[in-house]
Amino acid sequence: MSYVIPFDENPSAAVEGEEARYPIRRIFCVGRNYADHAREMGHDPDREPPFFFLKPAWSIVAASADVPYPSRTSDLHHEIELVVAIGEGGSDIAAGDALSHIYGYAVGVDLTRRDLQGEAKKMGRPWDTGKGFDASAPVGPVVPAAKIGHPDAGRIWLDVNGKTTQDGDINQLIWNVPEVIADLSTLFRLEPGDLIFTGTPAGVGPLQRGDKVTGGVDGIGEITFAVV
Amino acid sequence: MSYVIPFDENPSAAVEGEEARYPIRRIFCVGRNYADHAREMGHDPDREPPFFFLKPAWSIVAASADVPYPSRTSDLHHEIELVVAIGEGGSDIAAGDALSHIYGYAVGVDLTRRDLQGEAKKMGRPWDTGKGFDASAPVGPVVPAAKIGHPDAGRIWLDVNGKTTQDGDINQLIWNVPEVIADLSTLFRLEPGDLIFTGTPAGVGPLQRGDKVTGGVDGIGEITFAVV
Repeated sequence: MSYVIPFDENPSAAVEGEEARYPIRRIFCVGRNYADHAREMGHDPDREPPFFFLKPAWSIVAASADVPYPSRTSDLHHEIELVVAIGEGGSDIAAGDALSHIYGYAVGVDLTRRDLQGEAKKMGRPWDTGKGFDASAPVGPVVPAAKIGHPDAGRIWLDVNGKTTQDGDINQLIWNVPEVIADLSTLFRLEPGDLIFTGTPAGVGPLQRGDKVTGGVDGIGEITFAVV
Repeated sequence: MSYVIPFDENPSAAVEGEEARYPIRRIFCVGRNYADHAREMGHDPDREPPFFFLKPAWSIVAASADVPYPSRTSDLHHEIELVVAIGEGGSDIAAGDALSHIYGYAVGVDLTRRDLQGEAKKMGRPWDTGKGFDASAPVGPVVPAAKIGHPDAGRIWLDVNGKTTQDGDINQLIWNVPEVIADLSTLFRLEPGDLIFTGTPAGVGPLQRGDKVTGGVDGIGEITFAVV
């Protein structure tokens, strides 16, 4: 039995960009980073700050590929997110220096087995089966900050079959991007190839087989995929 | 700013083996898979079955490298584990077929920021900052099953500075290796390069800077590292 893993050939561990395919090291995610989403999940954002979790790099779905409806769930949810791609590593990065560590931005969807996540929350158990499953991280092209700068406002939205379900603005982030990088880099040394999903606004909801999902962040781009 | 990630050159995403260096895709872990450890953590193994979480592939520490004491914790814990390396992928693998999907075995230590994990459990939050930090997964050489077969019994132990703190037998696993693979493969499609940490026996405890850790599984090997 062979044991060679074709890292560079496997499309699921890379995202498309304008200049190249970008292999992905880790995927960090921020939970409850929009107040209206925290409230729709039954939490008080004034008393409970955001937090971090991870998805495996291999859960990436490159832009526009179909997403298979995952196993062991009957409540697959969409969460549209601004994604930050780290280009320069570091630990204990000051918020004032954080933007210089960013290579670019993308649009991503944090797909969630909401039923498994809910069970885990209730039992004090890990969220990974709810959050880190195969194809749980559709990500659009990475747009270099050198081209678009560092957007701190702009509409973030998601449509299911042409009907808008999530509609917010990235200026509503509880922890803004520099604050996320500053805190995260005290917990992990950030490295090139790390992606950060920065959180989702209100309006998350279920997806069914056959649904067509389109979402975007103004100034960065759009992502479209079908659930099959 | 460049965005090239030298996957193949980074030692932290590969483990040593007898034939080659093995790049690692994902690290799955089984929680509370020994009854005595479940009890020492305050849980009843007869009422609460084991479960899964993940560490990022980049948290690997290849055999015998030093482990830096991690940030944001004052309660780093050791958990010695039998590690299974998947060689042939599959979904919905029957327990009776599971052994044929295994490339080999290794000895690993699931390092844990116990304070951050405890806070996450209490708040119903993800465990990732407690479990998936940098260098949280020391793993020894992968020994091919073609050489040693598929051990289902054997002492599993860990010494800190020469004093034994964990001492069990892999025949005490609540979910044995085929059962772990069967259930895990209904949640994720397993792929070559996936590692599975199968759980830890009782006796977990804190590590301090300067500690020398040695652990092993009879018939598979030993692992040694220093906390620096």
